[in-house]
Amino acid sequence: MTLNETHDLSLKSWVESANDGVTDFPIQNLPFAIFRRRGAFEDFRGGVAISNQVLDLSLLVQQVALSGMAHAAAHAASQSSLNEFMRMGDQAWSALRLALSRGLRVGASEEVIWQKCLIPQSEVEYALPAWIGDYTDFYTSIHHATNVGKLFRPDQPLMPNYQWVPIGYHGRSSSIVVSGHDIVRPRSQLKAPNDTTPKLGPSQKLDYELELGAYIGVGNELGESVAIDDWTQHVFGLCVLNDWSARDVQAWEYQPLGPFLSKNFATSVSPWIVTIEALQPYMQDWQRPSDHPQPLDYLDSERHRATGALNIDLDVWLQTKLMREQNQWHHVSHGNYADAYWTLAQMVAHHTINGCNLQAGDLLGTGTQSGPELVQAGALIELTTNGQQPLQLPNGETRGFLCDGDSVKMTATCVREGFARIGFGEVVGTILPALVC
Amino acid sequence: MTLNETHDLSLKSWVESANDGVTDFPIQNLPFAIFRRRGAFEDFRGGVAISNQVLDLSLLVQQVALSGMAHAAAHAASQSSLNEFMRMGDQAWSALRLALSRGLRVGASEEVIWQKCLIPQSEVEYALPAWIGDYTDFYTSIHHATNVGKLFRPDQPLMPNYQWVPIGYHGRSSSIVVSGHDIVRPRSQLKAPNDTTPKLGPSQKLDYELELGAYIGVGNELGESVAIDDWTQHVFGLCVLNDWSARDVQAWEYQPLGPFLSKNFATSVSPWIVTIEALQPYMQDWQRPSDHPQPLDYLDSERHRATGALNIDLDVWLQTKLMREQNQWHHVSHGNYADAYWTLAQMVAHHTINGCNLQAGDLLGTGTQSGPELVQAGALIELTTNGQQPLQLPNGETRGFLCDGDSVKMTATCVREGFARIGFGEVVGTILPALVC
Repeated sequence: MTLNETHDLSLKSWVESANDGVTDFPIQNLPFAIFRRRGAFEDFRGGVAISNQVLDLSLLVQQVALSGMAHAAAHAASQSSLNEFMRMGDQAWSALRLALSRGLRVGASEEVIWQKCLIPQSEVEYALPAWIGDYTDFYTSIHHATNVGKLFRPDQPLMPNYQWVPIGYHGRSSSIVVSGHDIVRPRSQLKAPNDTTPKLGPSQKLDYELELGAYIGVGNELGESVAIDDWTQHVFGLCVLNDWSARDVQAWEYQPLGPFLSKNFATSVSPWIVTIEALQPYMQDWQRPSDHPQPLDYLDSERHRATGALNIDLDVWLQTKLMREQNQWHHVSHGNYADAYWTLAQMVAHHTINGCNLQAGDLLGTGTQSGPELVQAGALIELTTNGQQPLQLPNGETRGFLCDGDSVKMTATCVREGFARIGFGEVVGTILPALVC
Repeated sequence: MTLNETHDLSLKSWVESANDGVTDFPIQNLPFAIFRRRGAFEDFRGGVAISNQVLDLSLLVQQVALSGMAHAAAHAASQSSLNEFMRMGDQAWSALRLALSRGLRVGASEEVIWQKCLIPQSEVEYALPAWIGDYTDFYTSIHHATNVGKLFRPDQPLMPNYQWVPIGYHGRSSSIVVSGHDIVRPRSQLKAPNDTTPKLGPSQKLDYELELGAYIGVGNELGESVAIDDWTQHVFGLCVLNDWSARDVQAWEYQPLGPFLSKNFATSVSPWIVTIEALQPYMQDWQRPSDHPQPLDYLDSERHRATGALNIDLDVWLQTKLMREQNQWHHVSHGNYADAYWTLAQMVAHHTINGCNLQAGDLLGTGTQSGPELVQAGALIELTTNGQQPLQLPNGETRGFLCDGDSVKMTATCVREGFARIGFGEVVGTILPALVC
């Protein structure tokens, strides 16, 4: 996969608002989602974002014949989930991207017909873009691992394995929801350090986690491994992901087998998947600081050192119930995915080194992305030191952790001189009160 | 769900070998699987075991009309996975069980037609019985938790949460395989305590874990919980499960987020699912020793104390490559599921107390079942004290952990005075050498 005509900054679309330099979805992006008209009695199907519109792939394949592989790919991508399209592999992904890029350009002969396949994003609702068989969550930010480790294990914030192993664990697939789905505050056993016994109650330390999610396109057979340099043939694309977390539940339950009820009540994903090909211009060199252990061979390669990191800006926004009345959002933090200690390529290579099979539609979370400065942290537990130093909001409210009625919004954006600015859209969720105990 | 005519010890089948008192599958059992003729170009479909035969439900529903709900249930159960049947709920499960029990009894008018729907088990192969969305593995044997805890954390074998929380974690669905599937020895990072750095290599401490698996039939909505007394409406049935484990990988990777590559390379399940209704006679009273903390209210009920435990004998057998030539198996250990510290009912109630949604086909592992005596342990790491006191096999071989070519077989059986002996069949797997590093 290399830079090609679809990445050209000078490309303009006949969808004029796509050329404003501000939209997340210029013609250089072309992310995929599953959608339908909001509330309509119609099937969910695949679509591509261009500015504030969705190009309905189901309508498109009915009305026009794309060239061979692009047509087969568009047909697969027009189904009610993207799994079949994901499974087709990077040649098909590229062929469709090129056809879409050409058809949406200023001067394209397709304009009149394709115009009829556009639906305003304001009129649609989204479903999960894929049927997700397995969800794995990693822990790739050393800053997050250190910040949280200090709170949970002051004597040993960073485990001895952290600098060697891209730590990950299995998450829950069934409770992954698409952006906009409300989140019921979980209840579970809680036990403060000084309590003698636990009790059942609603989490008092409900938090978000700022992550990216990577959808697997092409899987591997059980018993086989994916080499680090092959990752772009296996990963289809990325979304923004909020891995809601109940910190008090986690503290009591997580030893020795890891997080369970503290995480599996909900994970939110953005509807749009930005493809690896669209992200090509924002890949950059990766290196491990020279005073850190260098990765083992299966997690290292020349190509990876040249292109393994991804320059993606990440932002978190908070809106309380009061702020909603004024339609205000508070910008909580800013980070960048290039600060991750372990890359997507390393996540895929590690996940499969033992022969574990990945499948089309599987989701890999990057783990909370926190920057080197505490204000760049991707979770409240870090930003507020476990709730002890609450956030001060502009309207005078404070937050140690999330309150009922709070909404959290996350965005991701790629910016590089000489290339278009592209974005991921957003993932948003609002907290509902817990069930009565 | 109560005892009914299908549990009657005096029932005899016109499949005469079902009445021999030895088969795992007398007419009182009637477990479900997905099968086809071995190597045939035909679809997998649902079947029911009777003695050494499979009753082909796909053929059955083509040839005969069962009564209303039983027919709809048989139709659903004749598909290529049991998910749809599982989703129908306990009334449908019971209706089909009753119809099958009556049709298979001595003197049934159906005998001539149903005879044509039988296929010898020796001529079939099995698929996974359900599409498994999420796999959760629990840790319900306090004996196992204590034995393993002593090895990994001598200072604190049993975590303070163990007696309060039915500890569980998310496993990997994609690598669940049906009995008979070979297991490739996993490779991953390994680091002995005295090594200064880890290295990539094949696991040297490959182990099995003796478990039962419970398939969810009827799920719950995200944000809602299943009450402890409702578990039999949600759990469809049980299988025998071997959760293969790489102990050296686990020791290096498991902190702080739990097991990952040490487990997700393979989990084997028996093809047959014994239904909760078939297990009814083997439910028995459950109690927590009076000097242990009593469970919180959501994990406790009068009915649960009366019927929450399951009396199921569990056995492990080992066959080395040398022993295979003599067709010998060595009986390694024996245990009973009634020794579990946390029950299936408690697993379901805990898993959903935070609103996590279970779905038809989800699999819950009980965790390794070890008895109070060390010889009853359900894993080699316990039986051999982490490999230091190897098993002595009858032919003079020894085993600390599993070698390439070794096969492990697990069985489960229910025996109770006044009721039929029923069994689960077996789950078996053989170790293949690792990929070259």
